[in-house]
Amino acid sequence: MKIGLVGLGKMGANMRERIRRSGIEVVGYDRNADVTDVDSLEAMVDALPAGDRIVWVMVPSGSITDGVITQLADLLSAGDIVIDGGNSYYQDDEPHAALLRTKGVGFLDAGVSGGVWGLENGYGLMVGGDADLVERVLPVFDALRPPGDRAEGFVHAGTVGAGHYAKMVHNGIEYGLMQAYAEGYELLAAKDLVTDVHGTMRAWTNGTVVRSWLLELLVRALEQDPGLAAIDDWVEDSGEGRWTVDEAIDLAVPAPVISAALFARFASRQGESPAMKAVAALRQQFGGHAVKPAGSAPSAPPPA
Amino acid sequence: MKIGLVGLGKMGANMRERIRRSGIEVVGYDRNADVTDVDSLEAMVDALPAGDRIVWVMVPSGSITDGVITQLADLLSAGDIVIDGGNSYYQDDEPHAALLRTKGVGFLDAGVSGGVWGLENGYGLMVGGDADLVERVLPVFDALRPPGDRAEGFVHAGTVGAGHYAKMVHNGIEYGLMQAYAEGYELLAAKDLVTDVHGTMRAWTNGTVVRSWLLELLVRALEQDPGLAAIDDWVEDSGEGRWTVDEAIDLAVPAPVISAALFARFASRQGESPAMKAVAALRQQFGGHAVKPAGSAPSAPPPA
Amino acid sequence: MKIGLVGLGKMGANMRERIRRSGIEVVGYDRNADVTDVDSLEAMVDALPAGDRIVWVMVPSGSITDGVITQLADLLSAGDIVIDGGNSYYQDDEPHAALLRTKGVGFLDAGVSGGVWGLENGYGLMVGGDADLVERVLPVFDALRPPGDRAEGFVHAGTVGAGHYAKMVHNGIEYGLMQAYAEGYELLAAKDLVTDVHGTMRAWTNGTVVRSWLLELLVRALEQDPGLAAIDDWVEDSGEGRWTVDEAIDLAVPAPVISAALFARFASRQGESPAMKAVAALRQQFGGHAVKPAGSAPSAPPPA
Amino acid sequence: MKIGLVGLGKMGANMRERIRRSGIEVVGYDRNADVTDVDSLEAMVDALPAGDRIVWVMVPSGSITDGVITQLADLLSAGDIVIDGGNSYYQDDEPHAALLRTKGVGFLDAGVSGGVWGLENGYGLMVGGDADLVERVLPVFDALRPPGDRAEGFVHAGTVGAGHYAKMVHNGIEYGLMQAYAEGYELLAAKDLVTDVHGTMRAWTNGTVVRSWLLELLVRALEQDPGLAAIDDWVEDSGEGRWTVDEAIDLAVPAPVISAALFARFASRQGESPAMKAVAALRQQFGGHAVKPAGSAPSAPPPA
Repeated sequence: MKIGLVGLGKMGANMRERIRRSGIEVVGYDRNADVTDVDSLEAMVDALPAGDRIVWVMVPSGSITDGVITQLADLLSAGDIVIDGGNSYYQDDEPHAALLRTKGVGFLDAGVSGGVWGLENGYGLMVGGDADLVERVLPVFDALRPPGDRAEGFVHAGTVGAGHYAKMVHNGIEYGLMQAYAEGYELLAAKDLVTDVHGTMRAWTNGTVVRSWLLELLVRALEQDPGLAAIDDWVEDSGEGRWTVDEAIDLAVPAPVISAALFARFASRQGESPAMKAVAALRQQFGGHAVKPAGSAPSAPPPA
Repeated sequence: MKIGLVGLGKMGANMRERIRRSGIEVVGYDRNADVTDVDSLEAMVDALPAGDRIVWVMVPSGSITDGVITQLADLLSAGDIVIDGGNSYYQDDEPHAALLRTKGVGFLDAGVSGGVWGLENGYGLMVGGDADLVERVLPVFDALRPPGDRAEGFVHAGTVGAGHYAKMVHNGIEYGLMQAYAEGYELLAAKDLVTDVHGTMRAWTNGTVVRSWLLELLVRALEQDPGLAAIDDWVEDSGEGRWTVDEAIDLAVPAPVISAALFARFASRQGESPAMKAVAALRQQFGGHAVKPAGSAPSAPPPA
Repeated sequence: MKIGLVGLGKMGANMRERIRRSGIEVVGYDRNADVTDVDSLEAMVDALPAGDRIVWVMVPSGSITDGVITQLADLLSAGDIVIDGGNSYYQDDEPHAALLRTKGVGFLDAGVSGGVWGLENGYGLMVGGDADLVERVLPVFDALRPPGDRAEGFVHAGTVGAGHYAKMVHNGIEYGLMQAYAEGYELLAAKDLVTDVHGTMRAWTNGTVVRSWLLELLVRALEQDPGLAAIDDWVEDSGEGRWTVDEAIDLAVPAPVISAALFARFASRQGESPAMKAVAALRQQFGGHAVKPAGSAPSAPPPA
Repeated sequence: MKIGLVGLGKMGANMRERIRRSGIEVVGYDRNADVTDVDSLEAMVDALPAGDRIVWVMVPSGSITDGVITQLADLLSAGDIVIDGGNSYYQDDEPHAALLRTKGVGFLDAGVSGGVWGLENGYGLMVGGDADLVERVLPVFDALRPPGDRAEGFVHAGTVGAGHYAKMVHNGIEYGLMQAYAEGYELLAAKDLVTDVHGTMRAWTNGTVVRSWLLELLVRALEQDPGLAAIDDWVEDSGEGRWTVDEAIDLAVPAPVISAALFARFASRQGESPAMKAVAALRQQFGGHAVKPAGSAPSAPPPA
């Protein structure tokens, strides 16, 4: 078996390696000449068997994915299959599928989880699309997913879009889990009574109700940097957390935890909060309460 | 009529003035020689008619209020009345009432709202205790409350503790209201489309559903300092917000809005957030995502 | 002066009446023959002075507003003005303005607040669009807004879309305010200590920090139905609350209070919560904790 | 080695069994004659070596634990050790330690996690108290904890109270994790696009970022009851979640996720929500919006 893989960044390069280790040939294409196997998308397509081509797209979501899929619609032939394994918004999938369908090219959307650890551990996969296409790509999915029971690490979640939808929800949950551990970490760290915060969280990694892979990673981070002294409290968010809350709103599903986790990230990136300036101003207005002049040192209280 | 008033700080001094304007004599006592009318608590008590004394206590809650009430229990006689008008925790009221009861001294707890504007506008009053005591103190309550219908600005809310409980809940609501306006302010300020943020909020002060006194104060703050440039985003919290959420937990009452407002204040005062450092560390661990080194400039993104 | 008004529902009919009281003539059109002044949109347009027509649109947002504006683009002439006073999504405004612009017809978007009370009290108005158009419609705005200082009750908030954006944020704030009062109400009602819940909230309507029009309405509701016994805990949400949170997400503005208020409404409408079934199932799985069988009486605890 | 164990309920009985399997003798006492090894607490104490007794207490927290420890203070001798392994509030630990100290009896507090699965998997243990006492009880801790690295499954977290504090935080995190998964579950279940909800969550159990033991349990619950049809959406909370939020408030640590999870449980148990009745009443007051009469069917909308 021989497949194409477009996009050889951090994720794509690792996935190429993992697929190759399973014995499947991979022709990788990337604009970066240092990592690509071929010079062009055309060359990649030409290296694959027409009518039976499988091309995995692993590029940034949005306009870049749009561009690659549009190009592939031109280059591929009836019977070929495109899998979008990036973090695309699930509502982009059906338009992509429709475009490829006009050429007789099949489409699958695949949510891929596992981060930098996927190369060794395997990737969790959630796939949307037609069952016959899933069947044809199964050897690739089997190469990528963790060893063991296929149902643990892989799912054909539904029709086109279901894979990215599942990945979006997965990431929304991830936001909530991370924030829950983080709040717990802060509660331990804030208490003099607890003299071994790192050891306490490490003890939780076995036997307890809260054991998880994320917990193991937090313990690992605390091993590398007790007190997390070297890291800033600035947390980026990618699209999936936002999309998850948007979706909750659209479906009228209460999502207090996932949204709280998202808003905590927004707040973490604000040099100063206009909202909290407004609250401080209000307290001053009605109570004559002291406020801190702008630019005061963060930890100092306001003047008496 | 002639009453005693202990505590002549920002609130107490204004209240003394408002009561005097109504024609009631006030003997005020404060440790601060610049503001006190008499030299000692004893002198204040001696200036009042034994067995019919009314003493209003307006000092910081907790140990200072405890101390004053304990002293008054020694100095007062059967038939006298003590009103605690400070921001005492409502569960402190019954012990205070019980102590005074052993001397035949009556007790009322009074929540007082209105801040620095109370001198001119009158104070909203919520009172707990026995009806006959409330009746005796009514002229004082009438002096303090806003003019007009007594039922708008004054309530005998229930038994001992009910006044401070009502004030606690009032302040909890206040936290939620302030945060709601503040979030709305930030949403206006963040949008280029809106070229007149101050004017928009000022327009809301009449005719709209969100009109309120707090809104008028926020408009006033924006008039004095458009953009709130001179004020830091550091917001103190007093006990009542915390007590309200504690009470919600005790009563199993969902309080997502009041607690969110409280937590936003906590976050506003953190130089850096241990929790968000933990989330940033987790993202680095699983995704190899870039983090910002500690001490980076607030507004800068992490290095690529 | 003579203007057209399309849509004579609950809001539109009251607005027609208020504008007429100011001395401005109004030709109202509605599909409902019982309330309309003319038989058709064409008839309404014909009754107005070509090139100087002012048509206020007050119909449900979305496709109905789209339809009316499209029709008006056909019927109106260069120099005429359309005002969309409905609760349209602010991003729909520029497309509407662009369509009308092709005919030389001006467009303003107006957020209108005040509900059923607006007829008597006047409506709070937030307007977006060009200043010269605002100037021409000012007599109508003055008729609708509350008497007194124009700046309290009316604002030209910015360019096209700013009026509806401001109204959206206004309603988002409204969600937060209502939930804050509601949580406070529940905390009073849950406490035996407080024997006069209605009286306590009524006392807050004067002198206190939390006084507001919404509070007065809640007091009014409690007067009409102490204990709110006749009303179900089912709360609808209109588009603006959702749009506000969507916008917060888009702008990366933390909105914990407004979103909590929105989610509380979602939860209020769920016959049962799939999420809480999942939490109950988890507790049973790890702890052997008793669960309630589906269909149990709401207030009963689970079997021991 | 031979130890005493007071309390042979669901947890205690399993722990007795696991300790025995390790070769340590256990004299268990319970008021329930069907499960106890001896007739009285005295008999249990007499069966152990004076001055070297180890007694593990595993009874409900609060007054029952107080009672048992008070009795043990009478029965035990200098050099003996009591371990409170129940879910006691951490601030109860020092008073217990002080009481026992007067008799020369040592005290350790132990947080125990693992639920009904602990018998087979081992229990996660967090211990507070003096190091020399921890050392003496280590064989028992080793019997209870999961096999493998002691540091994964056991920690000496700090001084007296640190064990229960760590367990409290552990459970607070647990609330947040469960709610995050539950919100994600509902988002999958609410979407037609996803045709295999159970399979999707099962696929997450390997390779993904969100993999955890709780996730495995949720997959297990969905296997046993797809759609969770047999379970009510009524979720109890035990003390630890409440204490965690109380502690967050006391330490001024923002805990939006853990508190949101706690409040969702409160809401799940309300037959009807007074707060949401108040919001519905407000909407009716200002907008004339239709409300549902009390007692309407849950899923029906209000009358038009």
